Formats: sequence, C-alpha cells, structure tokens
Amino acid sequence: MIAKMVLERVMQVAAHLTNSAVKVAHPFDPLNEAEIAKAVSIVRKEHQELFFNAVTLWEPRKAEMMAWLAAPETAMRPHRVADVVCIGKGSKVYDGVVDLTENKIISWELTDGVQPLISMEDLQIVETVVRKDPKVIEQCGIIGIPPEDMHKVYCDPWTVGYDERFGNKVRLQQALMYYRPHIDDSQYTYPLDFCPIFNADTHEIIHIDIPKVRRPLNTAPPSNYHAAAIQAEGGFRTDLKPISITQPEGVSFKVTGREISWVNWKLHVGFNYREGIVLNNITFTDKGVERPVFWRMSLAEMVVPYGNPEHPHQRKHAFDLGEYGGGYMTNSLALGCDCKGAIHYMDADFVNRAGNPTSIKKAICIHEEDAGILFKHTDFRDDSVTVTRARKLIVSHVFTAANYEYCVYWQFHLDGTIQLEIKLTGILNTYAMNPGEDTLGWGTEVYPGVNAHNHQHLFCLRLDPNVDGPNNTILQVDAERGEGEVGSATNPYGNAFYAKKTKLETPETSKCDYNGSTSRTWDIANESKLNPYSKKPVSYKLVSREVPSLLPREGSLVWKRAGFARHAVHVTKYSDAQIHPAGRHVPQTSGEPSAGLPAWIEEDPKANIVNTDVVLWHTFGLTHFPAPEDYPVMPAEPMTVMLRPRNFFERNPCLDIPPSYSSSPSGKGTVKAADSTSKLV
Amino acid sequence: MIAKMVLERVMQVAAHLTNSAVKVAHPFDPLNEAEIAKAVSIVRKEHQELFFNAVTLWEPRKAEMMAWLAAPETAMRPHRVADVVCIGKGSKVYDGVVDLTENKIISWELTDGVQPLISMEDLQIVETVVRKDPKVIEQCGIIGIPPEDMHKVYCDPWTVGYDERFGNKVRLQQALMYYRPHIDDSQYTYPLDFCPIFNADTHEIIHIDIPKVRRPLNTAPPSNYHAAAIQAEGGFRTDLKPISITQPEGVSFKVTGREISWVNWKLHVGFNYREGIVLNNITFTDKGVERPVFWRMSLAEMVVPYGNPEHPHQRKHAFDLGEYGGGYMTNSLALGCDCKGAIHYMDADFVNRAGNPTSIKKAICIHEEDAGILFKHTDFRDDSVTVTRARKLIVSHVFTAANYEYCVYWQFHLDGTIQLEIKLTGILNTYAMNPGEDTLGWGTEVYPGVNAHNHQHLFCLRLDPNVDGPNNTILQVDAERGEGEVGSATNPYGNAFYAKKTKLETPETSKCDYNGSTSRTWDIANESKLNPYSKKPVSYKLVSREVPSLLPREGSLVWKRAGFARHAVHVTKYSDAQIHPAGRHVPQTSGEPSAGLPAWIEEDPKANIVNTDVVLWHTFGLTHFPAPEDYPVMPAEPMTVMLRPRNFFERNPCLDIPPSYSSSPSGKGTVKAADSTSKLV
Ligand SMILES: [Co+2]
Ligand SMILES: [Co+2]
Repeated sequence: MIAKMVLERVMQVAAHLTNSAVKVAHPFDPLNEAEIAKAVSIVRKEHQELFFNAVTLWEPRKAEMMAWLAAPETAMRPHRVADVVCIGKGSKVYDGVVDLTENKIISWELTDGVQPLISMEDLQIVETVVRKDPKVIEQCGIIGIPPEDMHKVYCDPWTVGYDERFGNKVRLQQALMYYRPHIDDSQYTYPLDFCPIFNADTHEIIHIDIPKVRRPLNTAPPSNYHAAAIQAEGGFRTDLKPISITQPEGVSFKVTGREISWVNWKLHVGFNYREGIVLNNITFTDKGVERPVFWRMSLAEMVVPYGNPEHPHQRKHAFDLGEYGGGYMTNSLALGCDCKGAIHYMDADFVNRAGNPTSIKKAICIHEEDAGILFKHTDFRDDSVTVTRARKLIVSHVFTAANYEYCVYWQFHLDGTIQLEIKLTGILNTYAMNPGEDTLGWGTEVYPGVNAHNHQHLFCLRLDPNVDGPNNTILQVDAERGEGEVGSATNPYGNAFYAKKTKLETPETSKCDYNGSTSRTWDIANESKLNPYSKKPVSYKLVSREVPSLLPREGSLVWKRAGFARHAVHVTKYSDAQIHPAGRHVPQTSGEPSAGLPAWIEEDPKANIVNTDVVLWHTFGLTHFPAPEDYPVMPAEPMTVMLRPRNFFERNPCLDIPPSYSSSPSGKGTVKAADSTSKLV
Repeated sequence: MIAKMVLERVMQVAAHLTNSAVKVAHPFDPLNEAEIAKAVSIVRKEHQELFFNAVTLWEPRKAEMMAWLAAPETAMRPHRVADVVCIGKGSKVYDGVVDLTENKIISWELTDGVQPLISMEDLQIVETVVRKDPKVIEQCGIIGIPPEDMHKVYCDPWTVGYDERFGNKVRLQQALMYYRPHIDDSQYTYPLDFCPIFNADTHEIIHIDIPKVRRPLNTAPPSNYHAAAIQAEGGFRTDLKPISITQPEGVSFKVTGREISWVNWKLHVGFNYREGIVLNNITFTDKGVERPVFWRMSLAEMVVPYGNPEHPHQRKHAFDLGEYGGGYMTNSLALGCDCKGAIHYMDADFVNRAGNPTSIKKAICIHEEDAGILFKHTDFRDDSVTVTRARKLIVSHVFTAANYEYCVYWQFHLDGTIQLEIKLTGILNTYAMNPGEDTLGWGTEVYPGVNAHNHQHLFCLRLDPNVDGPNNTILQVDAERGEGEVGSATNPYGNAFYAKKTKLETPETSKCDYNGSTSRTWDIANESKLNPYSKKPVSYKLVSREVPSLLPREGSLVWKRAGFARHAVHVTKYSDAQIHPAGRHVPQTSGEPSAGLPAWIEEDPKANIVNTDVVLWHTFGLTHFPAPEDYPVMPAEPMTVMLRPRNFFERNPCLDIPPSYSSSPSGKGTVKAADSTSKLV
C-alpha cells in the first residue's frame, strides 16, 4: 500500500515534469507570441521607425539540429533565433537575425533592390486610397460609375509582379478593380477594365493602366452564393441527412507540444508565414526501430500564371507563397465546418506591421479519418478472407489568396505512404468584357460580361529527404519496353518491360520533365542500404500525375521569375539557406538573373548529388480553363502527390493493424471485429 | 373529417401500387433468380446435356429503350430477354437468345473456334485433377515435393490466354502451381516452376511447360498475414481507437427497385457476370429539369500483361473481365468490414454450371460519405465567409481475380462530377526463383525465393454518353502555348496559352494516346447545345491521369488480343452489339484478327462520329513494379478517373447545398449550421 502510494506520487511528479517540459519550445517550434515580442523589442532598441514585415523562426541549422536530436542530453540545444524582415521609409528593406537565447542581434542588413512580401495589412490599405484617387474616380466615371458611388468600388491588390517601367526600388501593388452594386454582391461579377498602380511607400496611385478598348461596367444582375441570395431564390435543399463522425474513445494520435505520434508515424508540425505548414523529422517505426524518412517537407512556392496576352495581364502571375505568404493568409478554422470529427487544432503566431504579436486561432487542423479498405484478400478455393480497414492522419490548413482558396492536406497512411492533397476552391479571378466580345480563347465568359482568364496553378513541393539517413540519391524511373522486336532473342514474345532508372548526378543534369506515357516517377533512394530481399536500395517513390508544362514561353517574365516551374524536378545539394525556390524576397524580382533555384544550380552546376544530402524540388499543379460551373464560387478541385515506400520495408508494414474480419483455411484464429455502428438501410 | 379519411385511403392505395410496381422488373434490371430459372427451362426443353456458362440480361436495344423511357405509358415495354452461353461436350459453344416475355428461343447457334469465360466452378475443378496427375506428381518430385505431399499442392488456374501449340478448339486452362507447407500458409511464397495445361473438356493434363533452368521448392519460412500468424508474432496493435460513422436520421438517397435518386442524381444500377456494375440512364436534375448525362457506363474489359520474356510467362496476361467475369468473381460484402456507415446492399443473381440460379448476397454496396470541403471563400477585407461541406454517393463492388482484389467505386459528387476509383489489393502473382538468381529487371524478389514479375493493370472504361441527348462529339483537349515567341505581335509577353481542341471525326482517326505534359483531356460535347454564357458546347470532360502506354510491343500477343489497350481513347459509332472491346468470347483468342474494338473500327473506319450517337472507350491503369511492401498482401493502391461537367451548367450546380457556415458583408442572413457531433480534442 505504501509502495503503491509512493509509485503514484512519483508518477504525478513525472507527469508534472513532462507537462512543464512541453512549455519549453522545441527547436523546430515556430516562434510563439512571447518570442516574437522579444525579438521586436531587441530590434526596437537599435532600429526605430520600421514596419515589421516578418518575424519568424530562423530554423536551426541541420547539422546542429541533427546532433542535438541524436543526443539531446549532451549536445548543445539549438538557440531560439528570429529571422526578421523590416521595411523603412523609402521602401528600404532590412534583413536581420536575432538570437533570442542570447538576446542580441546577430546580423542586420539593408538589402537593396528587393521587396518583401505583401502582408494582409499591406493589402487592406490600397482600397481606401484607390477610392479617393481623382484619376481612379475619373476612370470609374468613364466606364459608368458616378463619383458618389466610389464606396461601391473595391480592389484586390496584387503585388505588381514585375513591371519594367517601375523596376523594384519602389514597393508597388497593382489594384485589380471591382464594383459591388450592393455590399453583399460578389464583386467578381463586376470587374473594372483599368488597373491602378499603388506606391506602398507613399500611399499614392502612381499610374493607371488603361486598355485601348474600353469595357463599361457590367450590367448583368448579381451572381451570388451567400445564404441570403440562395434563400431569395428558393432556399437550400432539405434532403441531405446528417452524417456523424465520432471517436467515442478518443483519438489514436498523441500530441506533445507540436510533435505528433500516430501508429508508426512521428513528426513535428511547424508553421511559418511563407510556407504555412512545415513538417520536420518525419519518421516511421519499423519493427521497433524509428527510421527517418523526411527531414523537412513543405510547399515552398507557387506561381499562378494567367494566359491572356493583352497588356497588362502578363503581370497576373501570383507567387502566392513568396509574394503574400501561405501562413499569413491562413484561415482560422471552424469545428464542424472546415473540419469534421475529433479535431485537434494548433494556432499560428505572427508579427503585425506595428511589431505586435498576433495569432490566428485554429490555423492547423489535425485529425484522423477512416480511409476505406487497407487490404483484402479472399482465397477463391476455401473462402478464407481477411479484410482490414485503412485510416489516415491529416494535418491541414486553408489559405485565402484574394479570390482563391487553397486547402492543403498532408496525409499519413498506415502503409508508409505520405500524400499531399490540395483542393482548389474560392472564386475565379475575373476581367471585364464587352457584350458580344470574343475571348479569343484566352478566357471563358463564365457569366454575362465576366471573362475568367486561362491560368495555371503550379506548386513547388520542397522535399528534404532523410531516407534512412541524409545521404540520398534521386533516380528518374520510366516504364520501358524490353529491347528487341517480337521474335528477337531478347524479347521473343515482345512482352518484356522493366523499370528504367536514370540516376540524377549533378544539379544541371537533374532537370527532369514529366512523361505520363512512361508513368514516370522518381525514386528517393539510400544507395548505402539495400532491401535484404529485393537487393534494391531502400527508397521512397515520388508519384505525381498532375504535372503540366509551364506554359509561359522560355524568356517570358514568368519563365524568368519562376525558375522552379521550368521542370517537374530539380535536385540540389542541401544548403541551410536554400528554402525559397523563387528567392527570399519575391515581389518585383525581374528574373534577370533568376533568383532561387536557377541561381543555386548555376553556382555549382556540377556538384555531386549522388549519395549525399540532397533536396528534391517538385513542381506540379494544373492548368485551369474556366467554365461557368466554376462560378460564382468554385466546387473544390482536388490534386494529389504521393510519396510511397518502395523497397523500404521488408514487407507490408501494416499487417499488425487489427482486421475487421479474418478467417484462415483451417478455421483457426478467426477474428470477427466488424465495426458495430454501421447499419443496414 | 370525411375528406381527410378519403385522402388517407387514396394515399394508402397509391403506396400499395407503388410497392407492387417495384416488383415488376425494370427493363435494365439484371435477370432475377426466377427469370434465370425460366430461361434455363426454356433452353432445356430443346437442348439437354449442356453446361451453362452464362444466363444474363440481353439488354434492351437502345432505340426501343429510349422510346419506352420517353413514354412508358404508350410505348412498348421492352421484353425481358436472356443472353445464354452454353458449353457442350467436345468444347462446343452455343450462343442463344431467349425471350422470357414470349417464352421462346429467338436464336441458338453453335459458335465455332471460341471459348467462353472460365467460371469459378471451372476454376475449382483444376486443382483436384492436377494433384492426381502422374506427370505433375513427377514434376513435383523433381523440385522436392514427395508424392505423399500432393495435398499440399495448389494451383491458380488461369485461362491459357493463347498458346499457338494448342489453338482454340479445345477449352484450356494453365495451372499456375503453388505449395502450402501448412494449410494456413500463403501458397504465393511457394510457387512451383512448371506449368501444366488442363483440358477443361476431358479434365486431363495435356501438357506441362517445364523451364530449362529448374527452381526447387522455396525453403524460406512462410510469410503470412492471417490473424493467427500475426498473433503468433506479437499480435495486433491496440492503439487505434474506433471511428464511428452514422446517419442517425437515415440516408439521403432513395432506392426504388434498382433505381437510385440522390440529391440531383438519378441512375439505374445494373450488374452482370462480365462487367460487374453497369450504370444506366444517369441524369442530373438542373433547375427542375432532368438532364441526361450518360446512357451507360461500365468497366468493359481489363488486361494484366506480365513483362517477363521467359517462356511461358508471355501467356500471363489476364483479361479479368472477359476471361473470368468481374461479376462472377464478386465478393459478398460484410457490413462494418468492407463497408462502413449506413449501407444499402444489392444482391447479384447468376446461373451455375448445372443451370440453377445462384446468388451472391450483398454484392453491391451503396452508401454516402462526407467528402470534405465542397466550396469555401473568405473575403479578406470583411471576413465574410461561406463554407459548405461535400459528400458523395458511392456504388461499389469488390472482385477477386485469383490472387488480386479489385475494389471498384463509382462515385457521384454534388458538383456533377462522376468519379471512378479503383483500388488494387490482394496478392502479387509470384514465380519461383533460385537462391541468388538475378531477376534481370523483369521482376522483384519480394521475399526470399519469390519473384513477382512486372505487370500492368489496364482497364477499359466504356462510356456511352448522353450529354443532353445521344448525339455527342468527342474532342481531344491540350493545353498549348499561344503562337509567337516573346516579343511577337501575337504573344508580346510570351504568356499566352489556350485549350487546343481537336475534334475526333472518324473511328480510325479517333485513336488518341495520352500526353501528361499538355494535361490532355477529352471533351464529350453536345455541339447542338451551347452554354448560354460561354457559348461553348455543353460537355463532360474525361480527366484521367494514370494512363500508361501498353508496354507489350506492337505485334505481340497482348497487343493483338487487347486491341483496346493500344490507345488511351478510341471512339466508335454506337452499336447495340458492341459491348466487349476484346470480343464476346475472350479466352483463347489469337488476336488474328483482333476481336472487338479493332474489328469494329476496321468495319467502318471512316464512319461519322461527329454529333451522333458515339461510344468512348478509355484505357487507363498502372504499371506495377513489385516491391517487398506489396507482400504478403498488398496495401490498397488507388487510381482514379473523373468525368467533370464543363460548360454543362450555367453556374456551380451545388449552391443550394446547405452551408455549414455563411456570413455576408452586411451581416444579413448568417447561417450557423456546424455539425454538432464534431469535437475538439
Ligand atoms: Co484556377
Ligand atoms: Co499489380
């Protein structure tokens, strides 16, 4: 009895210590509000009168972090360090690094000729300025909006992209103009035909691009999707019965700080203002051994080029992550709306323009889902059968890039597969058109007077692999016919085929395009470790099937600025500083020379990328030719990328998942564990 | 009061009539057990001593059926007709048509030089014969199996495919040989190296293919996945908490006979022994008008070619539907195992060899699922937001083709999208290998002594479109760059791109391959009806991204026999008789000439397929290079094809789906309808 009480007391103390330990930030954790405030105060001591563009985790250097993870008791714990971007008067940009452990600024530089991303606050300012600008008021008058209706004028401010007339010394935005007849009407039905250029430093409109052919304000009735509009036209359907998804005994994952463990998976969930979710140190426990799989994984960049050649639409090519920030634009999610089931949320903390910490509550959703049949087999001769259900763990966020919504789902499967699913929803970017005007094939009239231009959504997935260690090799894999025609000695029946593997040996020769007809994939292999059965290197395979070519031509502005999108795959030797494939500061880059990935490759084109620490950059996405069913709000369009273990395990790694039913030929050991809440109807 | 009683009585009578009406078979309904028995008895009167291979619905001719659907009160109701295949002594095959409405045989023919599919009963017979055959016993002895262990010898009988030595006058099977040390051990770990040929007419082994290099019986320990094996090695995980999916108020779909209506969708669910699920007369109600979309949709054929050039592996290329029957091999599903939630099942009725009706209970699963976010948009300036959840209706079955399982999910989405998802699971086909033997790249050693050969799974989706009527046109659509280099007058900024559409005008020129880099899709358009906004023809777009080339070479056996698989798309003019793209009877076809699709195209290569009744044949699938993680049972691998409405609707067709949350800028009409069963954890 005494012994039991002592044990209980020891366990209480241990639990208390564990809880306290959680409060200490993990080196991968994003900066919390207190840390952001501290970074700002350290900066403020030396540099006043600056706006804060970003205060984010300066991630621990990989070597240092790997050493600490290997021996957390003895190795030096990586310092907490802030990566700071500030903007001063005259569009001056400062890049700083602040050590929060030592309370000091490590570096502080005035960076010339760059423009950091446009924050939500930057965006909010433009509309007010536009409405009061006399030249904008004049243009509105020309297309049919009287001065007293200027409060009905709206704009989606985009970065200017790059405009050779204005360069990159001044921080600019282009205002894509719209109108709302009533405050509740979707402005995308009423695009205006001109485009003011806003100086973010002086808060002035410095130019207006006016098309040669004018297009007066659309006269079509509103096209809305908000509840009152649907109620007014007959209301919502009443024939959908509720579907309830519950976990009465709780969830199967465990969250410690920002580390998640679920079945065999372990990972750390980071988040930053640029990439949004960052997954670190992803491991899979295989027969009791925790095997590393990926060191870091994120969506590192995007570009959305539009395909209308008419000036100034060439400027429409949003780098949504680099120019606006997938983290900054992240939605605060709602239980039972965005997320269904048993949900764990994480918040996201940022700095605002004034230097105060702000927080997006429920920015990241973590939950598990049933995923149908995991595996099944019936023996036809004796009807013995095993059927086991699958589930997956999903880490997700949703961000709103002006008109569009991107829903990002990182999914972990029981069989060792990692899947990134992205759903596109939200509203098409629209432009004005005259009645009867021909879109010339560059767009679609999705509603009377509304031209939605052709565009691509191209995402750059940054994969920092750690397949049984950091030294990995990337191979392009194509399904190829065996040599020899029908009747030849090597291929007598003509049926031979095999997986042709091409090793990527240097950054300059690593540029691969997609080939759908050979079912092209890429192996991320550890050549130092062979699967004992297949004798092939342990690997993860990148399987990605939505891989359009970059359609802007070689030498075009997008081609120059979005170097990462020129090929489906690029491989570089790992470098701590190489995170953003279109450059650290993306707005107003000219692409001469191309920042980010092309520059890194050019620095050392013949570097060895075989059996060393490498990064794989994969660009995928889709080409979107709009149609009326995308309007006035677009049903979600999914796209997916998978990373599948191949020759990584000695066998199916999920044989120990309890079956729903299993019987053997002998009848021995039958398991009947059908889910008891399912019902016949 | 009297009025109310009268009304109630009228309603009772009406309900009674409706229930009775359901009992009368819909012309699309598969033959039920009574009808099968009737067909057999009609045949038996004139033809005795035959085995029954198939008694299935002879589907109503399209013209007749369309007329009846348009005017069920006045047009002639299509007769119930049976399509009968019988086998007599001497491998004689009879094809018959029996009118069940008029109780008579309409046609009866002895068909020469064909072999109908191998039924489950045909398969079951071979193992017994093989075990007793002296030459098989001798071969077993050579590789290390003593005669007293012949009860441990198993075989998966496959159709012979085609073997030039034996032709197609005699009904043959090839026996892929295996061994089980213990009755509960998976035989796929112990493949035998020789291959007996079985005569299904005489029940004799007529030949044994023996490889030049012998491979003795595998000595590796068993690799099993049944429950007792997992229990013996440490048991199942206990850390997965239950997920319950319930519909406390019932389901949202309605089943009347075999017709389903769900939200705006209506369709008829048929089923036959070859294709399994057949979906007929699929319509979508748009603003109160029921618009036809597809007349008939099914998986019509498959081929699984293996890529090892060593004799006799060229014979391994299963046409799982045409040679065995996706319906015949269908699993009886289990609630809470294969299917989760609120489930409606349908049975499947067939004839057996002896001519008696048999039934697979719970062959088809019908249910609805939550499907994440349907659409969402947040206005960044005022935080007004609408988020609406999606769901889908799924009609599915699972069939077991010897070692493999195919799970087929026909999914209907709220936005008008139809998605076919197929999951592959089950067990790899395996072959023997010697210790240290090199697979030469034609296969993978997935477990010691177990060689799993490279193979493809190619499915042929038969789409009989009815996009606002039967007269449709197919166009190939490629994302293409605009003409002119950067700086040109037509493309000054080099950013122009558009959807290039190529109209398929004749069967011979309709053969399209896949192109991943242009994001190639195919429009199924009704050129007589333009979308009022986009002025483009109403259409459904075929979006399919898993489209490998057929890897067996031109002129090879598979290339000749599986003509449908040579191209991603073929288009033919509709003909009632053209259902099976590799021919009506597939086993032992030589491919000289190619049956099915190539023959039909050759018959009238220049037929007009523009704005007429057409059929689109789409071959998709995947190339499978096995790995140890696929063994001893394979985690399900998904693949998907989508049919999406484009320019079909005037706007997003699901705006009337109740939102989870909706607020407007003015605050008017806010809807808060978050699912109340979701929980924070
Ligand atoms: Co889009
Ligand atoms: Co396979």
